[in-house]
Amino acid sequence: MNEIIRIHRRHFLVGAAGTVSAAALGASGVSVPALAQDAGALPEYAAWKEVEALIVHSQNTMETKRGVIGLGVVTPTDVVFVRNNLTPPGEEIVADRDAWEVSFDGVGEARSLTVGELKRLGIESVAMVLQCSGNGRGLFDHEASGSPWITGAAGCVVWSGVPVRAVVEELGGVADGAKFMTSTGGEEIPEGIEPKEVMVERSVPLDNMETAILAWEMNGEPIPRAHGGPLRMIVPGYYGVNNVKYVKRVAFTENETDAKIQTSGYRLRPVDVGGAPDQPSMWQMKVKSWVTHPLMDSESGRVQIYGVAFGGVNPVDKVEVSTDGGETWQEASFTGPDLGRFGWRVFVLPADLEPGTYTITSRATDSEGNVQEQSTEENHRGYDYSGWDRLAVDVTVA
Amino acid sequence: MNEIIRIHRRHFLVGAAGTVSAAALGASGVSVPALAQDAGALPEYAAWKEVEALIVHSQNTMETKRGVIGLGVVTPTDVVFVRNNLTPPGEEIVADRDAWEVSFDGVGEARSLTVGELKRLGIESVAMVLQCSGNGRGLFDHEASGSPWITGAAGCVVWSGVPVRAVVEELGGVADGAKFMTSTGGEEIPEGIEPKEVMVERSVPLDNMETAILAWEMNGEPIPRAHGGPLRMIVPGYYGVNNVKYVKRVAFTENETDAKIQTSGYRLRPVDVGGAPDQPSMWQMKVKSWVTHPLMDSESGRVQIYGVAFGGVNPVDKVEVSTDGGETWQEASFTGPDLGRFGWRVFVLPADLEPGTYTITSRATDSEGNVQEQSTEENHRGYDYSGWDRLAVDVTVA
Repeated sequence: MNEIIRIHRRHFLVGAAGTVSAAALGASGVSVPALAQDAGALPEYAAWKEVEALIVHSQNTMETKRGVIGLGVVTPTDVVFVRNNLTPPGEEIVADRDAWEVSFDGVGEARSLTVGELKRLGIESVAMVLQCSGNGRGLFDHEASGSPWITGAAGCVVWSGVPVRAVVEELGGVADGAKFMTSTGGEEIPEGIEPKEVMVERSVPLDNMETAILAWEMNGEPIPRAHGGPLRMIVPGYYGVNNVKYVKRVAFTENETDAKIQTSGYRLRPVDVGGAPDQPSMWQMKVKSWVTHPLMDSESGRVQIYGVAFGGVNPVDKVEVSTDGGETWQEASFTGPDLGRFGWRVFVLPADLEPGTYTITSRATDSEGNVQEQSTEENHRGYDYSGWDRLAVDVTVA
Repeated sequence: MNEIIRIHRRHFLVGAAGTVSAAALGASGVSVPALAQDAGALPEYAAWKEVEALIVHSQNTMETKRGVIGLGVVTPTDVVFVRNNLTPPGEEIVADRDAWEVSFDGVGEARSLTVGELKRLGIESVAMVLQCSGNGRGLFDHEASGSPWITGAAGCVVWSGVPVRAVVEELGGVADGAKFMTSTGGEEIPEGIEPKEVMVERSVPLDNMETAILAWEMNGEPIPRAHGGPLRMIVPGYYGVNNVKYVKRVAFTENETDAKIQTSGYRLRPVDVGGAPDQPSMWQMKVKSWVTHPLMDSESGRVQIYGVAFGGVNPVDKVEVSTDGGETWQEASFTGPDLGRFGWRVFVLPADLEPGTYTITSRATDSEGNVQEQSTEENHRGYDYSGWDRLAVDVTVA
């Protein structure tokens, strides 16, 4: 689909606020130094992705360029970001999808079910913003380890599968005393490494069972291996890591897992402080928005400013746009279908721009009155920069 | 994305009711005679499509296999059907999308605007079922000319662009006496042919101006050339032909165009009667639904029966499912996001199936109380078979 991407390349911006590089915004045709990673080749398991729409940070981290997010609400699968904690399983994992087995523990009748069996138990689809905990890491001042994502470790995806509550009902209900739903990924653990050190096993509060699904479809097609197929645990409104790929076990447990990814990983903590279970876990996402157009310099006159906004577990109620770096704000409108509280909305504000320089940004408010923050406090791992200050873009109008 | 398609191939059915061939249902891996067209190669302009998801009837007609339509509501662009009345323009048409010009007549200030200029006037997105007038032609008894589509000349697509009403407002309003909105396609007319004989120029009643958009995005990406990029007229709720590709002129006119595609083409008429302007034009779509799963033989036990339903210009209110060829019916539930009145809904009904043979079909009702017909009267060109009788599938449960 090269012709699809060609237009995007011409649409990307020249100037950008904060630490945003032009490459990260998608300006691959612009004469500014590109991030080295931008030139990276796609790994074999994601070779079908639109390489020109992505910034390849590493073989396990690929970011969607900011300007690639269009108006269509659902993010096309071939431009959705990729982030794997471990090397994904080989292609044999999707050779016979219906045969994939997942075991259930902490229920009346603990046992394994195949995907083929799950498909008979129930059907539900949910549109959800999938966002990596580290989205926006590149906007922090301190150099946190991990990929310097800007806005593109996020997309709005329709997931389809069986509601977890339907599976639990089939298996005789949740065991007494369970407080968490714990999901384990099917990645192979490299030899010589203690599994708990690296395995992808995440616990979320039990009440997520009501909205979670075990999904085999992503945007209407079987989930590609790069995104967790044949089966992925989907916890709507929760950061990406909780949506465990290649899920092979779901347990209803009294305690959170003692895997490192849960005990000290994905914890919100001050810079240079070690991770610990008493720190907040990267669970529910925050209210957030960003502009996706315009990102490049423009001629004067009327311009349609647009972008995306979401509220994590709450619907987003309002988006305001500023063209003067947050001095003044105007309310934007939503356009396109409303996919429900876990999806994102596209917002639009027409603006008449005289020649000059503008710092354009957006600020979302959710249905509970939570307002997108102005700036995000530094945290050791550089999780989820959501401040409208550095999510701004500078645009010069001639 | 071969891995995505592989699963579909294993999901397609063996038996089917009526005149449905297994090949048309997507059973490309099954040992039944395939339609000759199924083996066709994709034309250059659609080479990026998922060939395994499509039945290639000709170089200008490619059908989505029935079982490829999943649960995700929005049909992925790479599996959406293709139908062109004329050979599409060359790739140069999308080399500089923003430079494409469209002229406006029958407005206060008649003039041309580029796509770049249109993008500044307004933004709107609409989810819409795009369906070819001939969808279901293969289900009629008589041999109508044209591709023998079964269910797959339809998809649910999110279109984004500028509302026509915003353009009209910019140009000083519609001229007095206008009763139609007439759109002209930008295809090249072969030399030696009278343009009116073959040109794609369609008129629709003027009130469609309120919902129509001039779209440059399809499912969140620039519209591929195969689907009418750089600019397509979108008339929500109207059959495909009215959604003029490569649109180069929009006129507000007192009369319908005298192009043959309007005067005698796309008219509902008895078999062997010639086309004429007093016959109904293929404008608003009818209420319709069909099952997309199960399509193949199954083991006994609980099965999730699902499919898609839409009401044309009205929201679909109810879907009933029958497993006995229409003797008895049970109401299905909707699942997944509601994309608005012009989109389709995914319906689901869990059924406990004992060993035996089942004729499974669905019947939709729209918000105005219009019920999907039992069978569709023969018409010369074999337009829009919507009867639940022949849209049924036969499934043997062992």
